[in-house]
Amino acid sequence: MARIVKKFGGTSVGDVDRIRNVAKRVKKAVDEGHEVAVVVSAMSGTTNNLVGFCREAAPLHDAREYDTVVAAGEQITIGLLSICLQEMGVPARSFLGWQVPIKTNDTHGAARIEEIEPENIEACFKEGRVAVLAGFQGVSSDGRITTLGRGGSDTSAVAVAAALKADRCDIYTDVDGVYTTDPRIVPRARKLDKVTYEEMLEMASQGAKVLQTRSVALAMKHGVRTQVLSSFEDKPGTLIVGEDEIVEQEIVSGIAFTDGEAKIDLRGMKDVPGMVSRLFRPLADAHVNIDMIVQTAASRKGETDITFTIHEDDLPRSQKMLDDLELGVRRIDYDTNVVKISLIGVGIRTHSGVAQRMFDILSEKGINIQVISTSEIKISVLIDAAYKELALRSLHTEFGLDAFEDKVFDV
Amino acid sequence: MARIVKKFGGTSVGDVDRIRNVAKRVKKAVDEGHEVAVVVSAMSGTTNNLVGFCREAAPLHDAREYDTVVAAGEQITIGLLSICLQEMGVPARSFLGWQVPIKTNDTHGAARIEEIEPENIEACFKEGRVAVLAGFQGVSSDGRITTLGRGGSDTSAVAVAAALKADRCDIYTDVDGVYTTDPRIVPRARKLDKVTYEEMLEMASQGAKVLQTRSVALAMKHGVRTQVLSSFEDKPGTLIVGEDEIVEQEIVSGIAFTDGEAKIDLRGMKDVPGMVSRLFRPLADAHVNIDMIVQTAASRKGETDITFTIHEDDLPRSQKMLDDLELGVRRIDYDTNVVKISLIGVGIRTHSGVAQRMFDILSEKGINIQVISTSEIKISVLIDAAYKELALRSLHTEFGLDAFEDKVFDV
Repeated sequence: MARIVKKFGGTSVGDVDRIRNVAKRVKKAVDEGHEVAVVVSAMSGTTNNLVGFCREAAPLHDAREYDTVVAAGEQITIGLLSICLQEMGVPARSFLGWQVPIKTNDTHGAARIEEIEPENIEACFKEGRVAVLAGFQGVSSDGRITTLGRGGSDTSAVAVAAALKADRCDIYTDVDGVYTTDPRIVPRARKLDKVTYEEMLEMASQGAKVLQTRSVALAMKHGVRTQVLSSFEDKPGTLIVGEDEIVEQEIVSGIAFTDGEAKIDLRGMKDVPGMVSRLFRPLADAHVNIDMIVQTAASRKGETDITFTIHEDDLPRSQKMLDDLELGVRRIDYDTNVVKISLIGVGIRTHSGVAQRMFDILSEKGINIQVISTSEIKISVLIDAAYKELALRSLHTEFGLDAFEDKVFDV
Repeated sequence: MARIVKKFGGTSVGDVDRIRNVAKRVKKAVDEGHEVAVVVSAMSGTTNNLVGFCREAAPLHDAREYDTVVAAGEQITIGLLSICLQEMGVPARSFLGWQVPIKTNDTHGAARIEEIEPENIEACFKEGRVAVLAGFQGVSSDGRITTLGRGGSDTSAVAVAAALKADRCDIYTDVDGVYTTDPRIVPRARKLDKVTYEEMLEMASQGAKVLQTRSVALAMKHGVRTQVLSSFEDKPGTLIVGEDEIVEQEIVSGIAFTDGEAKIDLRGMKDVPGMVSRLFRPLADAHVNIDMIVQTAASRKGETDITFTIHEDDLPRSQKMLDDLELGVRRIDYDTNVVKISLIGVGIRTHSGVAQRMFDILSEKGINIQVISTSEIKISVLIDAAYKELALRSLHTEFGLDAFEDKVFDV
């Protein structure tokens, strides 16, 4: 007997029929003798509707009232799922955030979970019942409903698993696991059986979109074994675990990419102290996230070039800010026709020469590298967007990530 | 400065624009210096949708989970109304049933309010804020969400007014007050400025449909001055008050009618002890409500006739039960082509001859009375449905209830 937390997102509970399917998945685990807590999101579309109502009521609205409104979505799902489970003969009861309680701080709209008291859920298990929990929501110390922000249900599930000391946290999604890269672009992409928290963190933040970054960080912190699997097919997914659980470590586990980057080149900037700070301060104040940065050594004229990337959505207001700054640079170029490609793998830490091999492969294909940045387990390069598929496929093959021919992903 | 509770139903908060109109009504009372608590229902249609989901999930479902699902409707409205009020510069905060708390028993789906702690709402008033409360819902002693049953928001409002010792409870509806009778049938029907709790109780249960019977009984018990008024027009409605507040008492305040009656005649029943009990027992067991009953004196043959009325929806199963009983009566007749007409007025208690005058008026118009029943403040007769309009209009005129010519209700 194991203790398992299962999380189903909005599409998996999109209507009553789908909720019934979720109930069947849960029943299977119960029939196998497990203690099960289920965390669910709002039925797909519901949250957007509720957010729409709030915006219609007032463009700028009290986040406490917003939370009260949008938390209604998950409330509907937990009741319906409990009814479906009971109808199948599986004893179940629903818990709202405040009923668990899932205690959060009072940063409404983006609250952080501070504590989850496991007693009520454990009492529910003792009575032989499935606990059906509302994801995405909690309660503040002054008794008001809070929400964790978009995608917060993943975080709820992992936090509940940590509080219950669960054996596993299953996150059901519309994909069947974590792939070496996006199979829509690289047909030979392979589903990973296991991936480390660190790698998954890089993949999530690099756009793999399977799992919210925040929930992966939480799983890592508490050592929650987390599985990403399909809510529509009944087969194992990808387990996200500690490095110690992975025996045969590949050097590179996956290749991520980010499309929405914009590159800004400043040519001929005076290389004087404080210049970089003067450049980035207003962007930071305006919450523009700066991703990759590279600065050339100063020329004999005392001039330097700086290249950095931001999200392309931030480009228009960043352009305006840079113009207003009057930096006295020779030229500013903007380019949204770029893509960031990242090799990810805990093996990168221990194997030298991975970056060199990456550069060689790209060079052989005639792909120019515009910016490079590296972390302990990741090497990212910025290239012309036109070369995205070529770069991804070449790197995927050369780093030994391709699936066997007969397992080619069917697109 | 007065303390006022205002209640707005589903149609009044049907969309964000209408919620904004409600906010304007509330703002007006705040600007006049009053302390205001607002009780709202779910946006029209929402509750029906949620009930539909529950039925789709399972025809017979756990009432606790049903309550969790349907209570989401009011949760959405209170957040949106608070946002609209704040947008107009009126400080406001929302309260769910458990946040007030509105404590109920655990009869889920039809819970009774046991206690409302006024402290949190009073603290809200002290901070100069409007309290926006979810109607229809409460919390049981074991911390689960309960609902009061359909139309429960009226009851919530009156109970909150009682707990807050409010000066008045305003119930906004789609009619502008309580009329002497249905103006769609009697164009000269007149809006009443005041009506007593007792009369309103009779009118509500006789089909006036303006206010839930339960909420009127509660208002009477706690002496809550309750006003029924239009949510679309800005003018006074009808005040429901104690008898002492009504100086000039009419003998008859209103005339109600009930369409959905069915009459059952049993002819030639043996007049032996226990026969009536044997007749009504199975109906009572099946929760068939018996309304009017009349029994003739036994004939020389020791036979009696019994006539009684039930709701026409209960007729098919009642027919079956009566057939199964094998009462040995000579004949059973069923008739749904009847209507019950009731004169209502606290004056009936002190004025003799009202019934006689009613019978005379009907007789003059050639209307045959099939069954009569009376209470302290009500005289009801069952007549052929074809005479409904004639009876209502004649009685309305003869008992002096007609509006002045120039105030004729425009239909």
